[in-house]
Parts: sequence; structure tokens; C-alpha cells
Amino acid sequence: LHEIIRPTTIIRSPRLDSRTGCSITLASETFQFTGSFKFRAAYNVAASVKQKMIITASSGNFGQALAYACSLLGKQCKVVMPDNSARVKVEAVKEFGGEVDLVKTTETSRSQRLAELAALHTDAYVASAYDDPLVIAGNASLGKEIASLPGGADAVVVPIGGGGLSAGIIDGLRQAQRQWPVYGCEPAMANDASRSLRAGKIIANESEPQTIADGARTLSIGNHNWKVLKEGLQDVIEVSEKSIEEAVRLLFFFANLKAEPTGAMSLAAVLTRADLFAGKKVVCVVSGGNIDPAAFIRIISAAKS
Amino acid sequence: LHEIIRPTTIIRSPRLDSRTGCSITLASETFQFTGSFKFRAAYNVAASVKQKMIITASSGNFGQALAYACSLLGKQCKVVMPDNSARVKVEAVKEFGGEVDLVKTTETSRSQRLAELAALHTDAYVASAYDDPLVIAGNASLGKEIASLPGGADAVVVPIGGGGLSAGIIDGLRQAQRQWPVYGCEPAMANDASRSLRAGKIIANESEPQTIADGARTLSIGNHNWKVLKEGLQDVIEVSEKSIEEAVRLLFFFANLKAEPTGAMSLAAVLTRADLFAGKKVVCVVSGGNIDPAAFIRIISAAKS
Repeated sequence: LHEIIRPTTIIRSPRLDSRTGCSITLASETFQFTGSFKFRAAYNVAASVKQKMIITASSGNFGQALAYACSLLGKQCKVVMPDNSARVKVEAVKEFGGEVDLVKTTETSRSQRLAELAALHTDAYVASAYDDPLVIAGNASLGKEIASLPGGADAVVVPIGGGGLSAGIIDGLRQAQRQWPVYGCEPAMANDASRSLRAGKIIANESEPQTIADGARTLSIGNHNWKVLKEGLQDVIEVSEKSIEEAVRLLFFFANLKAEPTGAMSLAAVLTRADLFAGKKVVCVVSGGNIDPAAFIRIISAAKS
Repeated sequence: LHEIIRPTTIIRSPRLDSRTGCSITLASETFQFTGSFKFRAAYNVAASVKQKMIITASSGNFGQALAYACSLLGKQCKVVMPDNSARVKVEAVKEFGGEVDLVKTTETSRSQRLAELAALHTDAYVASAYDDPLVIAGNASLGKEIASLPGGADAVVVPIGGGGLSAGIIDGLRQAQRQWPVYGCEPAMANDASRSLRAGKIIANESEPQTIADGARTLSIGNHNWKVLKEGLQDVIEVSEKSIEEAVRLLFFFANLKAEPTGAMSLAAVLTRADLFAGKKVVCVVSGGNIDPAAFIRIISAAKS
């Protein structure tokens, strides 16, 4: 596994430190193959299952990651995507060697179409982007990398969507016997993880929240992830849409980093809870860098508050 | 030295490979301290000289790099800058701990003011951004890193301004006993290195060329660098302003990399000389990522040709 996966990019920025009052280490997955951490899980899934065909539903980073992982492994990959997906996303999956199955979501849901395809291809593996032990195991590789950071950390802050990344990082840190507290972060308008942690059970969002952090538009945490997160998360920090955009700008201006909004949530959490992190060594996981250019330009162009 | 300098960031992008027809490895200095390779040289200069005060003239990356290096070493740093410099650049030097000496360039040239300051502070070291053996030695650290890339390279492509980076890389590769050909690249409208190589002696631009690659607006190659370059460079590739902008876009879209135009020249050279590099393993050095946000937005917004 470790010969294929690209190590995470460790970035330090004195100017970011002076603006946050913390000692921040960015662990950036923006240069992972296909531009996000999803490749870690996707490759682990594709390499571990015996099936020669893998089917998934994804309009985002997992589809690209799985397509590329399958092409490296000589497997076939079908990705179900809504027919109104951005053309660049459809092209990316195709370019990485995946077959795109466009579905009219006004007529058929993605999960319906996924079930249809699974019935058609009984020899295929149906992969979940965030609810599979193989996903946690793949993402644990990032936890192990973080565990080996010289100087250690007082806290690790991780974006939460379906919870696969945070569960993997908790698992990887445990394997390396690091007791560093792991904070999840999610949009305030998609705060199902926070509510789940308080309730002690999975609480789902009623509909897909339209946060700018599109990796956090999931309805709920995956069951396998929840088992790890309910005990392993120190807390979940809710961040505003405005703070996410501010974090994207800070990363761009002071760390030369192109981050997608979901990836910038970890820095947004540090901005939001300055009281909690002041003076501490904080690892912010930047989960990915794939963002629609128009959205990125809009955020970067906005006057600083 | 190697405990302070951040290792270069190695980036692979299958989508960039398919667009260029090469196997490209980006060696990105955009996450070096202060956002460009200049910190390697600046730190080596500041750490090597016995003087406690260092003075330089720089409106760009070297000023920031020297200011930060001096602040780490507890030395004083004065940076002469034109009084019409972008405010963000002046602020950056100050934030990194440097004193900014603004000069009305309509009345006094930067070199005049530098001489004045040197006469005032006889105990200070006057540092050149690109004509000092200590600069070459500092940049050689990047050559040694490139030399250790697994799988080797058929060519290394390096942006040229004053020639300090390319001379350092040639020197570092030599120290590591690598015979890989090193190609310089520079804007066609600032082609003094190309003309110098053909003439066999340093040829200067008549005036500061207004290329978008502001790191290449130097009048000529430094004397110390020339001694290395005249024998060590395989060739110099001239790139158009248009190809530089296209390279900035490709790096942004397909490698998630924020590069400054000077840094993107190496990819522009690959685009320009597709015939030369087809099918080869090419290391493109991306020298820095500090770009005026408005310029970046303009380039990224431009429709692809």
C-alpha cells in the first residue's frame, strides 16, 4: 500500500501561526493521487476485494479516486453520477479510467440505480465511499503518518463528512500508540456528527445540507465509522460557512495552498475555537484540493472581513 | 542547514502527464519557508556570514526570505524596496521581521540607496539575491534533493532569472554525481540567458523586461552563476508569456498547485518543447508560489485556449 499512496504534504507557515496564535502543521492531502485523501481508501478497497469490477455512487472525490485505483489495478470501475453533475467532474472520472453511469435523479435515485447495476453485475463489488472497514483501514495510513510527526501534537483536527477519514485517523494514531486528542469539524448547517456525539447515537440530517463544504453534504455518519468515532473523538467543532471561506483564503494567501472548502474546515475550526487551541501544537488535516474554479475565484476575490 | 530548510514537495499528476506526453515530477518550492526557493540561499547567507546586520535590495522573494532567515538567526535585516512596491510585499517583509527601507526610485536608484546604507553601516553584510557563492551553495541543497529522487530523471528543467537557482541545482546534482541534463527556461522577452549561452559570455537585457514572470526581470545572470551555467546548462528554452499563463492554469487545474508565473516556466518549457521531452522523465522545478492574488485570478479566469 505505502508504495502507491503518496505521503501527505506537511506544511508549516509562520504567517498562519501568527494569525491563529497556534503552532499549526498542515497535513495536506491535496497532492494525493486524484487530489484528495479518498485515494487512500479507494485503493485499499480496490486492492483488497477479489472482484474484478467495482461499482459505486459518487459525484465527488471518491469516484475519481476509485476510478484511478481500479485503473492501476487493472479492474473495471463504474461510477453512478447525477446527470446534472459538473462536466469537469464527469470528465475527471472518465480520464482516470472509470465508466460514468449518468442517472436522472428526478426519476431514479442514485441508490436505486446502484441497486439496479448490482443486480445486473452480480460479480461486482459495490463500494461505499465511507461505510466500509476497508475505508477506515485505508485512511488509517494517514493517521500513522501523522503519528510520526517529529515534535508531536496537542490536537489533530479533521474534517467530517461520512466519518471515514476521522475514524481512519483515530485508528492510525491508536495503532501508533498516540493519545493525541482528535477533533472533528463539520459545517454548522450540516452538524449531524455533533448532534450524534451528544445523543450517543447516529443522528441523520433530514436532507442533504447545501453547505459550501460539499464533502460534508452526507446525510449521516457511516455505521462502521460511528463505532470508532463515538469513543475516539474528543469533540466536534461546528464551523460557519463564512469561516470556511476565510480559511480557504488564509490557506491561499499565507500557505500557498489551494484547498477545497471541505479541506479548509480544519483551519476554520481553529479560527472558530481560538480559545481552545491558543498556544497549542495543532495538526490541521486538509482533506483535498478539488474545487470548482469559479467557486474558488469567488472566495479568493471576496474582500477580507 | 537541512534541519531548517523544508524539503521540496514532490508532486506527480497523471492528468498532467497525459496532457504533456511526459512523465513529469514537480519539485515544488511553493511550501518552502516564505513561499519560494529563495529561503535556501538566504538562510545559507545569513548563517554563514559573521556580520550581525544584513542589507539587501529586493522587491520580491529574496527580501522576505532574508528577513525570515535573519529573524531565525537573531540578526538584523534591512531590505531596500521601491516606494511603489505592492503593499502586500512590503507587509510580508515586515511580518517576517525585516526593516523596509523605501526608496523613491525616480530620485534614487536601489543600488545607490544600497551603497548609502552600506556606507552608513560598515559592519553590515550586503547580500546579493543571485550573485554570491553562498547563494549557489544554499540552492545546491535542492539539487541534492532532486538527485535522490527514486527512478531518476532524463531531464531537469529550471527557471532562470539571475541564475542562482539553476547554478545551485547543477552544483547539487554534480555533488551527488548525477549526469542528468539541466535545461534552463526563461521568458522569450527576457532571453538574456539564452543569448549569453549562444554568445559564450554574459549578455544583459537593455532594460528590465516587463514579463509576467517577475522573478526573471533581472538584467543579467550573476557572474558566479555564469561560471557554473556556461558549462553546466544543456540548453535554455525560451517560453512565451502565453505559455507561462497556460502552465499556471495546468498546475492549478490538474496538480492543485498554486504557482507563481516564474515558477510555472518549467512546465511552460515542457509545453513549448514537446518534441524534446516526449516520453521522458522530466523534473520540473516550480521555484515559488507567491503571486499577487489579482494576477492569479486573472490568469485562472482566462478561457483555456
